[in-house]
Amino acid sequence: MLAVGRELLIGRTLNTNARWLGRRLGRMGTLLAEVTTVDDDLGEIAAGLKSCLGRKPEFVVVVGGLGPTPDDMTLKGVSGAVGVELRLNEKALSLIKEHYSKRNLGRIEITPARKKMAILPEGAEPVRNDVGTAPGVKLDVDGTSVFCLPGVPSEMKSIFRKSIEPRIAERLGRLHRKYFALKIEGIYESALAPLIDAELRKHPGAYIKSHPRGIKEGRSRIELDVAVVSEDKKKAEDSAARIVQSIQSRIGAAGAKVVSVRDSAP
Amino acid sequence: MLAVGRELLIGRTLNTNARWLGRRLGRMGTLLAEVTTVDDDLGEIAAGLKSCLGRKPEFVVVVGGLGPTPDDMTLKGVSGAVGVELRLNEKALSLIKEHYSKRNLGRIEITPARKKMAILPEGAEPVRNDVGTAPGVKLDVDGTSVFCLPGVPSEMKSIFRKSIEPRIAERLGRLHRKYFALKIEGIYESALAPLIDAELRKHPGAYIKSHPRGIKEGRSRIELDVAVVSEDKKKAEDSAARIVQSIQSRIGAAGAKVVSVRDSAP
Repeated sequence: MLAVGRELLIGRTLNTNARWLGRRLGRMGTLLAEVTTVDDDLGEIAAGLKSCLGRKPEFVVVVGGLGPTPDDMTLKGVSGAVGVELRLNEKALSLIKEHYSKRNLGRIEITPARKKMAILPEGAEPVRNDVGTAPGVKLDVDGTSVFCLPGVPSEMKSIFRKSIEPRIAERLGRLHRKYFALKIEGIYESALAPLIDAELRKHPGAYIKSHPRGIKEGRSRIELDVAVVSEDKKKAEDSAARIVQSIQSRIGAAGAKVVSVRDSAP
Repeated sequence: MLAVGRELLIGRTLNTNARWLGRRLGRMGTLLAEVTTVDDDLGEIAAGLKSCLGRKPEFVVVVGGLGPTPDDMTLKGVSGAVGVELRLNEKALSLIKEHYSKRNLGRIEITPARKKMAILPEGAEPVRNDVGTAPGVKLDVDGTSVFCLPGVPSEMKSIFRKSIEPRIAERLGRLHRKYFALKIEGIYESALAPLIDAELRKHPGAYIKSHPRGIKEGRSRIELDVAVVSEDKKKAEDSAARIVQSIQSRIGAAGAKVVSVRDSAP
């Protein structure tokens, strides 16, 4: 994910779009590999996208900077990074006109600012936005599908659900991911470390991560995430359950306590 | 900023550390240029850091992955990216011992997991952590100061305030940044665009950005950020105020309304 917008860099806005996207992809059995946030600046957007493309991912989602104002420069940055021209896209223009007419806003003039939202990188396709004005944009770059979405959360979510999720699901096939979250009391993270280590040696593909949650009434509190991914749903579930069981007995033997185990689909 | 941690990528945790850092730097008159979030994975951490260093920034703050558990692998990833070995750092080890003894935890054994927090990239210096166990780490790489901080917010903030902020302030000199936030009603973003454009032509160095906030009672609502940076405090303030005044009259002439103007130091 490439998030574009100074409001994210000056701490005016929390990147809740990244959280939403991460959860959504986690639930689908895949993982948001990287989130990069850059300023509203042509060079920054282009450099950020180049860096994302350098990873050769299957999908890049660029969020923000599609609107009509001069600070909305994502598509120009994308075309610069990819080395294609910007062109008026007639299909995008009719989507914009349709949006205004549907809203019964009367005859709204297609000013240069409104037209700007239909000026796409050459070879790109507009993606219908049922919630706002600026269409999403899809562009294929050397085997990576790049989707550009508006930063307004309702628009980003709507386009993602309708037009991107089905394509990701199709490529994913049948990957399943099982998550558990454990609450543990009475053991320091540094004492927990060798127990996790032993567990990871037994299950090299698993993901086990501890989060210290401070000291309460003299007892150290930790949250522990366990995740297993597999093409076989039952295998993912069984393996995750076995790891949790084994950790519980190790924790018990160390004189500490697992307070709760929660199924934690992200 | 390089944020390390799967919890950020699966939407379990919001990156409030990035917001805090962005605000803090904005207040100092500078800007967080980029935030990249990567998984707890050696290759990802190394690639993320290399990409940050490729920008030749003055400072990189790496947040997360300094603890005692196996998933804490930031320092190993950093040493891989920079091409130096990991070594036990005696100064870091005494900081860790001091931490345990200060807390009156009695004689706590320095287990391998605890020792791990003192194993730093060669040439790095530990930075005192007054709040938690794992020391911060400072490493100079080709003119960039790389600081590694724990991901626990209280520890990150404490180390940043005490040990990093003074060094940034020193390099910054006297840059001042003035922010205003305007609430506007009764104009579409696409109609606002040419007004902003005209303003930016008059003040090419200024930052003006609109955020659509939906339609209320048939009237379009927009928030507008205005920022000016200057070595001269008064110049930054005067210039920002002039822009706001000019926008107000343009908005009025367009039949819309500026509902409020707020001084918005980030």
